Amino acid sequence: MYELLNRIKETGDIKKIPEDRLDELAEEIRGFLIEKVSHTGGHLASNLGVVELTMALHLFLDLPSDKLIFDVGHQSYVHKILTGRKDKFDTLRKLNGLSGFPNRSESPCDICNVGHSSTSISLAVGLVNARNIKGGKEKVVAVIGDGALTGGLALEGLNNAGKLKSNLIIVLNDNNMSISESVGAMSGYLAKMRTSVGYNNFKGGIEETLGKVPWGKSVVSKLKRSKDSIKHLVVPGMFFEDMGLTYIGPVDGHNIQSVRSALDAASRKNNAVLLHVITKKGKGYKIAEHEPAKYHGVNAFDINTGKNVLGRADHAKTYSEVFSDEIVKIAENDRNIVAITAAMPDGCGLNNFKKRFPSRYFDVGIAEEHAVSFAAGLAIADLTPVFVVYSTFLQRAYDEMLHDVCLNNLHVVFMVDRAGLVGRDGPTHQGVFDLSYFTQMPNMKVFAPKDERDMRKMMRYAIYCKGPVAIRYPRGNASNYFDDLTDTPVEAGKGVWVRKNEKRDAVILAVGSMVETAVKAGEILLKKGIKIDVADMRSVKPFDEEIALEGARAPLVVTMEENVLSGGFGEHIDSFYENRGIKTGILNIAFPDRFIEHGEVGELLKIYEMDAASVADRIEKRIKQEN
Amino acid sequence: MYELLNRIKETGDIKKIPEDRLDELAEEIRGFLIEKVSHTGGHLASNLGVVELTMALHLFLDLPSDKLIFDVGHQSYVHKILTGRKDKFDTLRKLNGLSGFPNRSESPCDICNVGHSSTSISLAVGLVNARNIKGGKEKVVAVIGDGALTGGLALEGLNNAGKLKSNLIIVLNDNNMSISESVGAMSGYLAKMRTSVGYNNFKGGIEETLGKVPWGKSVVSKLKRSKDSIKHLVVPGMFFEDMGLTYIGPVDGHNIQSVRSALDAASRKNNAVLLHVITKKGKGYKIAEHEPAKYHGVNAFDINTGKNVLGRADHAKTYSEVFSDEIVKIAENDRNIVAITAAMPDGCGLNNFKKRFPSRYFDVGIAEEHAVSFAAGLAIADLTPVFVVYSTFLQRAYDEMLHDVCLNNLHVVFMVDRAGLVGRDGPTHQGVFDLSYFTQMPNMKVFAPKDERDMRKMMRYAIYCKGPVAIRYPRGNASNYFDDLTDTPVEAGKGVWVRKNEKRDAVILAVGSMVETAVKAGEILLKKGIKIDVADMRSVKPFDEEIALEGARAPLVVTMEENVLSGGFGEHIDSFYENRGIKTGILNIAFPDRFIEHGEVGELLKIYEMDAASVADRIEKRIKQEN
Repeated sequence: MYELLNRIKETGDIKKIPEDRLDELAEEIRGFLIEKVSHTGGHLASNLGVVELTMALHLFLDLPSDKLIFDVGHQSYVHKILTGRKDKFDTLRKLNGLSGFPNRSESPCDICNVGHSSTSISLAVGLVNARNIKGGKEKVVAVIGDGALTGGLALEGLNNAGKLKSNLIIVLNDNNMSISESVGAMSGYLAKMRTSVGYNNFKGGIEETLGKVPWGKSVVSKLKRSKDSIKHLVVPGMFFEDMGLTYIGPVDGHNIQSVRSALDAASRKNNAVLLHVITKKGKGYKIAEHEPAKYHGVNAFDINTGKNVLGRADHAKTYSEVFSDEIVKIAENDRNIVAITAAMPDGCGLNNFKKRFPSRYFDVGIAEEHAVSFAAGLAIADLTPVFVVYSTFLQRAYDEMLHDVCLNNLHVVFMVDRAGLVGRDGPTHQGVFDLSYFTQMPNMKVFAPKDERDMRKMMRYAIYCKGPVAIRYPRGNASNYFDDLTDTPVEAGKGVWVRKNEKRDAVILAVGSMVETAVKAGEILLKKGIKIDVADMRSVKPFDEEIALEGARAPLVVTMEENVLSGGFGEHIDSFYENRGIKTGILNIAFPDRFIEHGEVGELLKIYEMDAASVADRIEKRIKQEN
Repeated sequence: MYELLNRIKETGDIKKIPEDRLDELAEEIRGFLIEKVSHTGGHLASNLGVVELTMALHLFLDLPSDKLIFDVGHQSYVHKILTGRKDKFDTLRKLNGLSGFPNRSESPCDICNVGHSSTSISLAVGLVNARNIKGGKEKVVAVIGDGALTGGLALEGLNNAGKLKSNLIIVLNDNNMSISESVGAMSGYLAKMRTSVGYNNFKGGIEETLGKVPWGKSVVSKLKRSKDSIKHLVVPGMFFEDMGLTYIGPVDGHNIQSVRSALDAASRKNNAVLLHVITKKGKGYKIAEHEPAKYHGVNAFDINTGKNVLGRADHAKTYSEVFSDEIVKIAENDRNIVAITAAMPDGCGLNNFKKRFPSRYFDVGIAEEHAVSFAAGLAIADLTPVFVVYSTFLQRAYDEMLHDVCLNNLHVVFMVDRAGLVGRDGPTHQGVFDLSYFTQMPNMKVFAPKDERDMRKMMRYAIYCKGPVAIRYPRGNASNYFDDLTDTPVEAGKGVWVRKNEKRDAVILAVGSMVETAVKAGEILLKKGIKIDVADMRSVKPFDEEIALEGARAPLVVTMEENVLSGGFGEHIDSFYENRGIKTGILNIAFPDRFIEHGEVGELLKIYEMDAASVADRIEKRIKQEN
């Protein structure tokens, strides 16, 4: 098994495989991907879709001297296999193991760590200009999906690529689907080209034909005395040609020779070329071909059935499912509610809403910036837009939140999923900045639920309050740890005590997922005779000043949040005390000033001393210092 | 004088002006604008360019029930004149006076406060969808310049507008110039259309013509059996048509009747229409027509000569000029340095660099996101990109800084102009968030100069250090207050004491412009016998821990920064002390959690108690509390 694949030990080895056996190699790579990802989980369908494309790129390029950039980067597994990392696939997305995204520390063939969408063209335009300034000869290729092409950054990149006077190849990997269906006019435009198989043969024929017609010449001359009009007649991809790029395609992305030939043709141009390649997401694994969105990112699964082998350990809902459930309930009774996603209805839990209220559901494509300004427009017109989005992807819309929503004090509801650690996707996906960026925005209210019940209450509060409001909640199961406790109403600026002692040694002011950890740390410490009060702050901005003041009467206040320290909840508490001259001891528990690597959430929390046991240790140590 | 204009007392009054006198009214409005702006300063050229366009829009729409959105918003003066705000123009951009941008608190005809670029299409798509959901009938019109159209947000907006199945009018106000020349392929594309005057007459003729030709019918049928190809033949603006919009134009934007007719035609479509209007920036004021970039934003000027009547009070250079001067000097000796602007070479001080090193100069258009990812690409290839940009506009690229630059720890130099208060442009332009957003990004180093000499030293340090680095500096003159003092090398993590006393009552840790204010506050307090030490922190991240620790031996530490408190320098100092168990008194001086209105910088600093006298008061008061 893997006879040919086993010959690929390092970058460039693919060039030693006989040409007539490349398709066999492709099949081996597919088998390898399915086998490995079925054990580790990871991004499957997108990688199956680019097997031949990546092979053709590796045959075409000399890596690492040539430069290859994958947009988003979750489709770089084949690239990793072909650059000497095959044997590390058992460690995929595990702590200290192979990253699920391009990573500069793994290989010189990964020139940029990446995980967000739509960056590749701009990066590539930088590489091309650097080559020109330095007088280099290396090829530069960006691979971007049709979904990522709807992102504003990619469109800005295209606009600037159109000015280049030297070669850049932008491979448009068109699988008619970003993570879900791609969206917007661009999508329809690409669909038209996809079906225009006749175009390329027809090209060039029309001028000749018209030239032979009696009236033809005058028609040609009348055609605006401009060859542009003729080009429109015969060249597909005029959209891209209008932007100054040369369009080549569409090309069958599963035919290695076709892609190679097209790459060769593209490389002879002295400008930016958009090479339109059609691929099938999930290609070669029937179950994934059938439901590519489901097999975009997977847990370990059974190869024969495609079923998640982990199953669900319990009957708990994820926070995304709680959101999904509650938003439909609320929208049943309120026709003003509209929901927005940026190409992630599955991940974000909007599929039910979409089915139930299609006219109030908007998938804007991978376009978080538009999503936010669009929401501002809806809010100006007195609807209640709910934008559900991953914490890390909302970073793209920092300015739109601040300038469009907060400055106008508009009632837009941000449902911020995957806030805190996400685990295996690593540093590009950890949602550890949102408490910082939200709390620095005037008018913004910020909530974090500690459990399912609070999540539901918060949603109702957020949807019926005024002004900008965000609820940030973690990836994974919603806690039910506090099931019969603290059933108090959610309100801006109000927290709730979840543990109170007669005489406490320290007080923890905790946010979101950290409330449960705080209570557990308190239980550990209680066994050592140390008494800890715990407040669920719930409303991070504004926070409950009464609770903060009451807490300050204890000898030590501990803040806990799944966010970086810088600009987060803890620092605001520090500043609150300082500026009131309150001199209690404080310990801020939050992530340090570095990017958090990939690994299991539990492992990472231990490393950063944010699991219950570590927190208990830190508090104990600090109490000793204070005395 | 202003006979017709004086009849415009409220919204809609323009409809009472006889049609044959509208051109006269236009001339009166121009005279009024030139007169008023020559006294107050403000945005001149862009408003002179849209006089007839705005009049036509007001004739076409019923405001405020219809919805009109200006992109960026600095071209809304005529709109303000036509909506009953004519008499407030003497207060333009003054404290408590008329805002230089649309402002919801001024008029129901201003539906959104705005000042950043490229937001209007997304907002309008929101308004259109809201109208459809609510069953309204109001018209929605967005007015966007050709420069703003290169912004990714606008392009995302277009992509989503292309899906609309009900009317939206996007007026493309094409003056072939954003603030400077517009840039990128879009610009070339628009230029082609601008010169294609024959297009509209020709439209429709071609199918008929071909039908009459013997071979014609087969040609028509051969033309891809698709009317799209025919459309390409005869319709300009296929770029927009390909995106799903109807293109109408180009139309002479200074002909009121032409614009009205085009608006009427546009309003009959059941989708989004791009109405391409050609205008001349500065129109009607020869001096501004000649140099529109210079008259984009002006101080008070002499109408006859066009000269700035304020002149320059002194020979001091602005920080932008210091940058301009120093970057050229450095680049003379270092061929690796490349400079990037997002359509603001004038404002940012890159004109000299552009002239001197054209091949290393990049104007990417209004596309801050691309600018940053593009810089990342250049840095990957070991060049030294210097992106010079206003603090407030860099907000647009938060994610690109974090994900592309900081995650990869790339050496990109951010020169952040207009950091701190900018004054008259108001809340959309105050640069008071950058210390917060920069310091939360791992790997980022942040500097702020207190004077010209430090600025120069910092630039050399930043350009030759490693990793991401930002220098944030204020609008206006570079201080030379400290001319013969503190000439110590700039270094990450190193500050410098600028005032030291034998026995001090408080210590100020100050950042950038606030160092001078701190020293002056110290002088005020000294007269009352209160001794203040002042440290220029210089390096905001990492900050000088030694200085911070030494400061903490004083009874009170005061932090000072021209930034919001939340997430800024002061909170980081608070947290630093807290987590080390240091219990000195602290006072954080920074902007509160609100948007800062427009007005003179000096006035605003007084209001927020951040001028020297107020700071002295606050410190004195706090010292009394501590004792």
